[in-house]
Amino acid sequence: MTPTAIPEQMTAVVLDAYDGADALRVVHLPVPRPGPNELLVKVAASPINPSDLMFLQGRYGFTKPTPVVPGFEGSGTVVAVGSRTGLMGRYLAGKRVACVTQQTGDGLWAEYTTTTVNYALPLDDAVSMEQGAMSVVNPLTAVALIDLAKKAGHKTVINTAAASALGLMIHRLGQQEGVEVVGIVRRPEQVVDLKQQGVTHVLNSSHPDFNQQLRDLCHQQNIHLAFDAVAGDLPQQLCAAMPIHSRVTVYGNLSQQPVQVNTTSLIFEDKLVDGFWLAPWVNEKNLLQNFMIWRRAQKLMLSALKTEIRGRYPLSQAQQAVRDYESQMTGGKVLLDPAL
Amino acid sequence: MTPTAIPEQMTAVVLDAYDGADALRVVHLPVPRPGPNELLVKVAASPINPSDLMFLQGRYGFTKPTPVVPGFEGSGTVVAVGSRTGLMGRYLAGKRVACVTQQTGDGLWAEYTTTTVNYALPLDDAVSMEQGAMSVVNPLTAVALIDLAKKAGHKTVINTAAASALGLMIHRLGQQEGVEVVGIVRRPEQVVDLKQQGVTHVLNSSHPDFNQQLRDLCHQQNIHLAFDAVAGDLPQQLCAAMPIHSRVTVYGNLSQQPVQVNTTSLIFEDKLVDGFWLAPWVNEKNLLQNFMIWRRAQKLMLSALKTEIRGRYPLSQAQQAVRDYESQMTGGKVLLDPAL
Repeated sequence: MTPTAIPEQMTAVVLDAYDGADALRVVHLPVPRPGPNELLVKVAASPINPSDLMFLQGRYGFTKPTPVVPGFEGSGTVVAVGSRTGLMGRYLAGKRVACVTQQTGDGLWAEYTTTTVNYALPLDDAVSMEQGAMSVVNPLTAVALIDLAKKAGHKTVINTAAASALGLMIHRLGQQEGVEVVGIVRRPEQVVDLKQQGVTHVLNSSHPDFNQQLRDLCHQQNIHLAFDAVAGDLPQQLCAAMPIHSRVTVYGNLSQQPVQVNTTSLIFEDKLVDGFWLAPWVNEKNLLQNFMIWRRAQKLMLSALKTEIRGRYPLSQAQQAVRDYESQMTGGKVLLDPAL
Repeated sequence: MTPTAIPEQMTAVVLDAYDGADALRVVHLPVPRPGPNELLVKVAASPINPSDLMFLQGRYGFTKPTPVVPGFEGSGTVVAVGSRTGLMGRYLAGKRVACVTQQTGDGLWAEYTTTTVNYALPLDDAVSMEQGAMSVVNPLTAVALIDLAKKAGHKTVINTAAASALGLMIHRLGQQEGVEVVGIVRRPEQVVDLKQQGVTHVLNSSHPDFNQQLRDLCHQQNIHLAFDAVAGDLPQQLCAAMPIHSRVTVYGNLSQQPVQVNTTSLIFEDKLVDGFWLAPWVNEKNLLQNFMIWRRAQKLMLSALKTEIRGRYPLSQAQQAVRDYESQMTGGKVLLDPAL
């Protein structure tokens, strides 16, 4: 490993309180030193994901003591390794990696971050730093949801927020894996756009006949599983539309509303509402399983799991970047790039 | 079988539209004749259950063409048997039975009703006609819920609407079967009342500290399953209070509100909301299994599955009876008695 000049100080974004974008501040912090079992990564890019927005608002699965550097995932180069990192540390030194934050400590919206050996995943040569920065949260969620659908024997499933980066991945991965994904969007122009991208069945939830269209489609196609990233009324509409013995699995909360569901669906129609979170899905797998999933996802990064990028911001404009993404969560991702 | 004089006409209650008690009318109808596979039962008593109220409002799992005689269950004497009733028909002729309506045809709020051989269940000699009238819907629901809890290995479960006839049955049956049932009620006097009846853990959902009390109890007692007959906000409170990997099973809708649940519970805490309906639970069992369940329930009718009665009305006052029950659904059942 060629020694890289590591400065004493770095630019970082910190969240002062769980109040969303308003509570973000750009500061200078000491560059962290990798502890035992840790690596130091020079960050190349880090996206703003819906899960980051939930974290900023204190609505994610965990919070951390503030001030804290947000950013769940990103890419970069391993520039130093801590003690007890063993063979993996030596292998990863100098490598281009994707990494994710742990449940404690700072995240990726900074020039440097530390991560444990297990949370740094080597990028394929063909995968750019920008694509690599988005190679964990969305791609593995898509892999997980399509796996859940296949294992339960579903030939066709519904997915909401279908025009998002993750929605498109779920659709393309489903096509490759033999699971047809019916997309639900909320604007007519998204229907046109998704159809141009090859999505056969797209429904617009703002259409006055949406409930009837959805019901007809669910019964024609025998759809018993829906993935929902929106919550609010949508799970209720999905429950009501599907035949008896159906399930709605909620994996996001873009509406910021609780889930509603009619008791008729639950009691008399054997419908069920549950949730999906990537963290336990990954943690329940062993190292080899996760390695195999990672290899598979990396291979798909240039096709099914590719993400469009519509905006790049320096760390100093993190607040603006978050607001840009919040104002339009479809049509490409917004990245933070510490080199800008 | 001693021939019984069967009149041509009978008094019956009919529902004209799915508008609740307002749409009930007392009429004279021809006494029905038992068709193939059917029995004619002279009705002795029929209760008003929450499921009847749902039916009157068109909120039950099915509707029937109106005008229709409501009343899901009751007791009576088999006074005539139709063709093709075979051995069972001969066995049941003249017997005291409990019976339930089918998904088509008239119900029990009348002097006479027809039922199929499979839907007439012989009453033990020790079980009175009044108790026998309430020996299917609530007792079998209690048996089913406690069985679900036991089969999934739950030592302690929560049940809401704990002061209702069904709530008390679930608690007493749980005690016999080794499943502790924590009761939730909504008035402080119900806490006192249930504690006097031997319920160890009772919480009042109107208490300002209810959420904290519920959470503490769920974690102390390691409670991962809640049965809910209320819906509205309660499933959300139950989800939030229980440890991760928990389930809320909704079997009633006393609040007449849809179920609300936070996405945090679903996504990050692996909570799940589903429903229970007695009809498919019974239909999924074979004849022998149902016979064994029936025998067991009959044995318990004088103890765990006993129901208090607080009001008896003639058919001519059915509307008043329904309003009486609607105004107070705890403190004893309200029965319709065609002989009054």
